[in-house]
Amino acid sequence: MEVSQAVEKLMALQSKMSAYRHALSILYTDGVTVAPKETTANRSHTMGILNEEMYKLSTGEETISLLEFLDGHKEELTKKQARMVYLMLKSNRELQKIPMDIYLEYQKLLVEGDALWHDAKEKSDFSLFAPVLGRIFELTKQMAAFVAPEKDPYDYWLDKYERGLTKASCDRFFGVLKERLVPFIAKIAEKPQVDDSCLHGDFPAWQQEKLAYKLMDFIGIDRGHCALSTTEHPFTTSYGSHLDVRITTNYRPHKVDPSMFSVIHEGGHAMYEMGSAEDLAYTVLDGGTSMSIHESQSRFYENILGRSEVFTAKVLPMVRECFPGKFDDVTPEQFYKAINKVEPSFIRIDADEVTYSLHVMIRYEIEKKIFAGEVAIDDLPALWNSLMKEYLGLEVPDDKHGVLQDSHWANGNIGYFPSYALGSAYGAQFIGKMRADLDVDKAIEAGDFAAINAWNREHIWQYGSLYEPDELLAMLLPEGFDPNVYVDYLIEKYSKIYDL
Amino acid sequence: MEVSQAVEKLMALQSKMSAYRHALSILYTDGVTVAPKETTANRSHTMGILNEEMYKLSTGEETISLLEFLDGHKEELTKKQARMVYLMLKSNRELQKIPMDIYLEYQKLLVEGDALWHDAKEKSDFSLFAPVLGRIFELTKQMAAFVAPEKDPYDYWLDKYERGLTKASCDRFFGVLKERLVPFIAKIAEKPQVDDSCLHGDFPAWQQEKLAYKLMDFIGIDRGHCALSTTEHPFTTSYGSHLDVRITTNYRPHKVDPSMFSVIHEGGHAMYEMGSAEDLAYTVLDGGTSMSIHESQSRFYENILGRSEVFTAKVLPMVRECFPGKFDDVTPEQFYKAINKVEPSFIRIDADEVTYSLHVMIRYEIEKKIFAGEVAIDDLPALWNSLMKEYLGLEVPDDKHGVLQDSHWANGNIGYFPSYALGSAYGAQFIGKMRADLDVDKAIEAGDFAAINAWNREHIWQYGSLYEPDELLAMLLPEGFDPNVYVDYLIEKYSKIYDL
Repeated sequence: MEVSQAVEKLMALQSKMSAYRHALSILYTDGVTVAPKETTANRSHTMGILNEEMYKLSTGEETISLLEFLDGHKEELTKKQARMVYLMLKSNRELQKIPMDIYLEYQKLLVEGDALWHDAKEKSDFSLFAPVLGRIFELTKQMAAFVAPEKDPYDYWLDKYERGLTKASCDRFFGVLKERLVPFIAKIAEKPQVDDSCLHGDFPAWQQEKLAYKLMDFIGIDRGHCALSTTEHPFTTSYGSHLDVRITTNYRPHKVDPSMFSVIHEGGHAMYEMGSAEDLAYTVLDGGTSMSIHESQSRFYENILGRSEVFTAKVLPMVRECFPGKFDDVTPEQFYKAINKVEPSFIRIDADEVTYSLHVMIRYEIEKKIFAGEVAIDDLPALWNSLMKEYLGLEVPDDKHGVLQDSHWANGNIGYFPSYALGSAYGAQFIGKMRADLDVDKAIEAGDFAAINAWNREHIWQYGSLYEPDELLAMLLPEGFDPNVYVDYLIEKYSKIYDL
Repeated sequence: MEVSQAVEKLMALQSKMSAYRHALSILYTDGVTVAPKETTANRSHTMGILNEEMYKLSTGEETISLLEFLDGHKEELTKKQARMVYLMLKSNRELQKIPMDIYLEYQKLLVEGDALWHDAKEKSDFSLFAPVLGRIFELTKQMAAFVAPEKDPYDYWLDKYERGLTKASCDRFFGVLKERLVPFIAKIAEKPQVDDSCLHGDFPAWQQEKLAYKLMDFIGIDRGHCALSTTEHPFTTSYGSHLDVRITTNYRPHKVDPSMFSVIHEGGHAMYEMGSAEDLAYTVLDGGTSMSIHESQSRFYENILGRSEVFTAKVLPMVRECFPGKFDDVTPEQFYKAINKVEPSFIRIDADEVTYSLHVMIRYEIEKKIFAGEVAIDDLPALWNSLMKEYLGLEVPDDKHGVLQDSHWANGNIGYFPSYALGSAYGAQFIGKMRADLDVDKAIEAGDFAAINAWNREHIWQYGSLYEPDELLAMLLPEGFDPNVYVDYLIEKYSKIYDL
């Protein structure tokens, strides 16, 4: 076989895999948006079959020998082609180690798990979700043991979402946050609370939706390639390639900011996905490289830009327009402070920027304990509630506001949570680089996100998955990643707001 | 190979094909509902690949030899299994005759065609759609010539949607309608027009949607398995099996009845699909057997039941509830007459029950001429407009209200139109049978559709595609199909309304 022929086959293979991914993404999205309630089994049937086809395609003999052949001719490949082969071989070698029945059971389980989680959350009854969650964790552990028997299973999953991440490095990272942020939060609690009453009231979904579209336009999301819909828990997904991306939000009837910042958050994910170089479409390099780099973008737009003084000042007139009369007497300063109110709360995605990391830490501690066999699935609500009490001083009223609050575990995203906090910390260090090249505040002030988005595209988005997250970090932060930069940023920002 | 093993393979094959159908249906639905505007190429890429996979699966050597083997052991198969093998071999032998490049070009063309049609309709500019439409007709003719070179290509397509249908039988059928209905419509035109002003006004989409759900519930649609969304042109599709069915409607801001009767119409299709026997799920026998039997159900609910005096009297209070104040002074008789106003109009799906067939006849005449090479694609708007003038006395103002009004041709539904009129005529004969078994009016009066739906399920729905349409007709109408029953029904009903 000629190398050029093999490369053609490689591209066709990836193209076909992107079609299956597209089908699976849209089926998933349907299930969590508009699908009728009793259609889960039908959808699960279809997704099971398509997953099986994709599994066969990715692990078939023909694929393996193609990849091995190309791997043997690395030096004749472009950088991008070589990276495709590397990634596919890697996931192939991993997949090959997982028995097909386990793999298929896991895929089916996630479909059922999502439906059961929805139901359990609605009824605030963890027992409805516990059996399937138990099985998800069991299979998660089993898969880790099949793929990397030499590794601690939780380390395997941490590394899967973020190359190089381990319990040890997480412990160090959260250590810095805990050491410097916990006392800082205590200081804030002693100061008079900011008034966020302007964010409470009646906000009809259709008006919130209008605002959501304004925000998408404001931060420069191309709506010709990105649509918005509503789900219980907001998420971003791409349909086969970066050319079609969907984000979702959830409108709370009595609080205006959760959906606003969900839309900006998912918008950050969406722009990262959509920013891949054109020639990465329908390849495994299309889309973001890792969860924490993804979160560095989503939380960059949501918090570092979105919750800044200059951004909230630009957004206030839009909010006024969408909710006539309601914000007439609110000053930009009041609005800024309301948006940045620090107060321990039950739901992670509603959490303020400062207490947010503690929610992540709780999830990390629980996952560590589950993997270590130190807690039974049935005891998770109790463990959750006791950690919420310990770190945030809150009494969790029910599972809906506790362990059932989001769909991550139902969707198999285990070992994923640390990336939320890591991403925030990366973003805080990235903005220093961006500010060296352009006047960020002035651009926002001018309502012009083109330069900001172009910077991110040039330094991060265009590469898709061409670089590992640690390679990308080394390119962006030659001085190395330092969580103290993030903590400095938080302390400086919130000291001003709370007059500390 | 054992027959029992082969049957297992047959079921697995159909199951897999249903998964591809599911994926393709949901991709299509996405494209005409919520997909961002510039994602057509991406979706077309995925659908092209999945169609190719499905084509390979249906026509692969392994499939053919399996089907041939089972065909050779027919006598050991159940009636249902034998029918599956027959249908799959038939479509296989047809597919095999179509070169793969033609088949794939056609599938891709339909995706592009739909997008171009949307755009052309929006701009009311036929020239934007003409090139792709021309190619769709060309490929339609070519495919007929490949599959059935001995047949007239238009006869091939008529027969494809309704076994046994030919230009000759259509000419006879439309002949009866023309002979008896055209003079009847002329008589109506001489009488004072009924007042339908109550149906005009401002009807916000969200209120119309509320009514749509009430209507779905009223006629007994199981919303646990059937969802509603909105599109330019309403349609029904099933997602992989009868266990997940989707219908769409279109809300006109200033007229209340089009969406109401679209929902009931698509609801009829949906119930037919959903009514397949449980064991037909994930097989080729799942869902309706032919287009005209499908239309016999949709137009049965829409017109024969839906536009009856007893039905409209039950619906009026729902309409009052959804549009507070607007229908307080409207009597049931006024509402019934307004709903049944006979008046030539531009858009087929808005047409009254009496003039409706003339719209179908126009489409039939045009398709006949295109196949006969008697009209160029570019001249279709002119031909359309002249036939509208001739049959309905209307001057078509623009292509949006003329040749571009619906998506059928863009979706490749050529030779399909006669089934709309045939279905109506079948339904008029079916209700006589139903009335012999149960008091239909009393059931509607009691708001109880269970008996009506059970009758349709017993006599029609449960069979899915187990019988050919002519077999089903012979079972239901042993005396034979007679279009005069339909015309009698129309003349009796509308003579009362127009006092003739």
